[in-house]
Amino acid sequence: MAMSWDEVCETNCPTARALSVVGDRWTLLILREMTMGVHRFDDIQAQTGMSSFLLSTRLKRLESDGIVERRRYSEHPVRYEYHQTTMGKGFDRLLLALRAWGLERGGFAPGGKPSTRLTHKRTGKVIAPQWNPEPEDRPFTFDQVTTKLSPAFAAEREAKREAFRLSRRAAKD
Amino acid sequence: MAMSWDEVCETNCPTARALSVVGDRWTLLILREMTMGVHRFDDIQAQTGMSSFLLSTRLKRLESDGIVERRRYSEHPVRYEYHQTTMGKGFDRLLLALRAWGLERGGFAPGGKPSTRLTHKRTGKVIAPQWNPEPEDRPFTFDQVTTKLSPAFAAEREAKREAFRLSRRAAKD
Repeated sequence: MAMSWDEVCETNCPTARALSVVGDRWTLLILREMTMGVHRFDDIQAQTGMSSFLLSTRLKRLESDGIVERRRYSEHPVRYEYHQTTMGKGFDRLLLALRAWGLERGGFAPGGKPSTRLTHKRTGKVIAPQWNPEPEDRPFTFDQVTTKLSPAFAAEREAKREAFRLSRRAAKD
Repeated sequence: MAMSWDEVCETNCPTARALSVVGDRWTLLILREMTMGVHRFDDIQAQTGMSSFLLSTRLKRLESDGIVERRRYSEHPVRYEYHQTTMGKGFDRLLLALRAWGLERGGFAPGGKPSTRLTHKRTGKVIAPQWNPEPEDRPFTFDQVTTKLSPAFAAEREAKREAFRLSRRAAKD
């Protein structure tokens, strides 16, 4: 179902072009993980719940679109981390808008604790849903903020890591 | 492949929740059409290139998620238009961020004319990719702007309408 970049390049609509690159939830969830400092294949897989085939396909596509780059972090065995390129960080603003919508409309209890607290490094301000960057901080990227997980979200993520470890072990037995 | 709202409501992550509602390109293309004043089934179909089955499925899902509402505009025969709800307009900011990414990174010729010119009604300013709304204009919605199509984009859209009309006629013959 994926439109290829070539196909959509025929359209004049920039929104359609952007969607041809990130227009599925998996791709954006992968980028979300990277903004949270998660860069290794297994860790991304554990948090997104994707199959290794699907994750591998999406990462290759993101690499060929120039959104993500591989960085070798181990020689024996050869292992890579996945990082957003500068172009890829152009989507941080989009991820922030998704987060804002989810916080306001995602069915959370009013006054509840958000899953992440983002603190803007330069200004020290906590980023609220309606926050917009000052001119000097545009374009926004997650490099500008420190991210602190709520206890509930940290526990959710640890449970996912543990479930993934167990499923791996079970598959090997 | 679609996650249901119930499934993702178990996550604490607002980004994942937002993606459960709009995390596919078709859904966002449908909302894009609505922000451009296109509200009728056939017109949305012509511009997005979706099958009528797919469009119908997505619209039902958007309606049940409270993003889109149907409005009757004809009694005989009964016909509906599809409009964003207030909650649905919460995604306008996201569409604007997609547009901005596409304009800056979507492979357009530098200095070229954007497919749409958005003029902010209150301030009269043309909206550039790095534009952010003033506090009094938050949350941003497309109701705040007038949209003018470039000649190239207008021609592209007219060609799609024409192709759709022809395919309809061919199917009836």
